[in-house]
Amino acid sequence: MKQEIRALAFDVFGTVVDWHRGIREEAAALAGRHGIDGDWARFAREWRAGYPRAMDQVRNGELPWTRIDALHRLILDDIAPRFGLASLPETELAQLNLAWHRLPAWPDVVEGLTLLKRQRIITTLSNGNVSLLVDMARHAGLPWDCVISAELFRHYKPDPEAYLGCADLLGIAPGELMMVACHPSDLRAAREQGLRTAYVVRPLEMGQAKALPEFEQNEFDFVVDSFIELARRLE
Amino acid sequence: MKQEIRALAFDVFGTVVDWHRGIREEAAALAGRHGIDGDWARFAREWRAGYPRAMDQVRNGELPWTRIDALHRLILDDIAPRFGLASLPETELAQLNLAWHRLPAWPDVVEGLTLLKRQRIITTLSNGNVSLLVDMARHAGLPWDCVISAELFRHYKPDPEAYLGCADLLGIAPGELMMVACHPSDLRAAREQGLRTAYVVRPLEMGQAKALPEFEQNEFDFVVDSFIELARRLE
Repeated sequence: MKQEIRALAFDVFGTVVDWHRGIREEAAALAGRHGIDGDWARFAREWRAGYPRAMDQVRNGELPWTRIDALHRLILDDIAPRFGLASLPETELAQLNLAWHRLPAWPDVVEGLTLLKRQRIITTLSNGNVSLLVDMARHAGLPWDCVISAELFRHYKPDPEAYLGCADLLGIAPGELMMVACHPSDLRAAREQGLRTAYVVRPLEMGQAKALPEFEQNEFDFVVDSFIELARRLE
Repeated sequence: MKQEIRALAFDVFGTVVDWHRGIREEAAALAGRHGIDGDWARFAREWRAGYPRAMDQVRNGELPWTRIDALHRLILDDIAPRFGLASLPETELAQLNLAWHRLPAWPDVVEGLTLLKRQRIITTLSNGNVSLLVDMARHAGLPWDCVISAELFRHYKPDPEAYLGCADLLGIAPGELMMVACHPSDLRAAREQGLRTAYVVRPLEMGQAKALPEFEQNEFDFVVDSFIELARRLE
């Protein structure tokens, strides 16, 4: 018999917030002020693309524990020359790096989280650092019960410590916790540790419609188009 | 020159919630259902009185890291016989132990936190475990930006790791963080680590009017009667 779902843990980048739009718009505005032309949608995708590799370097021990803020900055410094941004003043680059703290939520998120919070505990379970997630919640009006980050465990998802550590902090069994994400790999790693899973379809995560990632029928407990639908399904 | 105050960290038991009333009322209701007479105000004070000693056992290494939920239960089992509660069913004792998750906020707290949250980041910095603080926030409607607990550092206040760890997670300097508490000892330990301090007068913490603890003129940055006054003073 399945256990009762007592809490929901949300992946954040892509699942809760539209990083592609947030980064594209902040980069375009900054570049515009400096008269720099460029493909800022591509810039957003390239910045994001460096992120799994950087985290893997932490996960496999090539890098010591490093926060996402610092990883984002390493990647930014790497790609900035190709986009004509390398000569910007340091204060401007530091501000741009914090664009990840100010990402906009998808349109269904605030209403959906508000509904879900009436039913169950809702927390982040993100690789973003705590201060990034706190700033984002204040900026986008996200009503989290608490902010749980890989930073608390010094283990990035998909390391098991992140999923199990989240359930442990909430004082519940892994089977009482449901991971909500738009990335099958995150959900598979969560399921491996005994968590329940909800897949949220976010076709515009990359800024343009894309094919759904492949997954098996019934691989996840729920497949939904929005947080509002998830709230209805879990009622 | 003083740094800007960017975030407020709140002690919880006594400062935010009225543990004396919450524990007294739950114990009295439980005892009433079982026809047990007793002095439940004294019971509340005795339960609370065991808590600093239990934490000190963790702090000095006599006990391994142990959550407050488990420390509360050890103390409850210790005092239960003197109050005629030892023969209660295990489920009832387990429920009573969770009374600490359901404590009522002081009357000024929700309005004061709501005002303070518009100005700055507000977080718990409590020795209570994360799940206790999350349940309490849901129950009492406390609008924290995040829930930071000694549990995250495995160091109880007044260990320096708790104060410094809180600032570190928020990505700010110790001097940009203000500790808010009704206990001078907590504030002194915070100040020792470079934090700013706000003393909140809670004369009814022990369930009866008591003399203010002694402190020096200008020892703390602010002395206030309520969170609403603190919001006004910090504007």
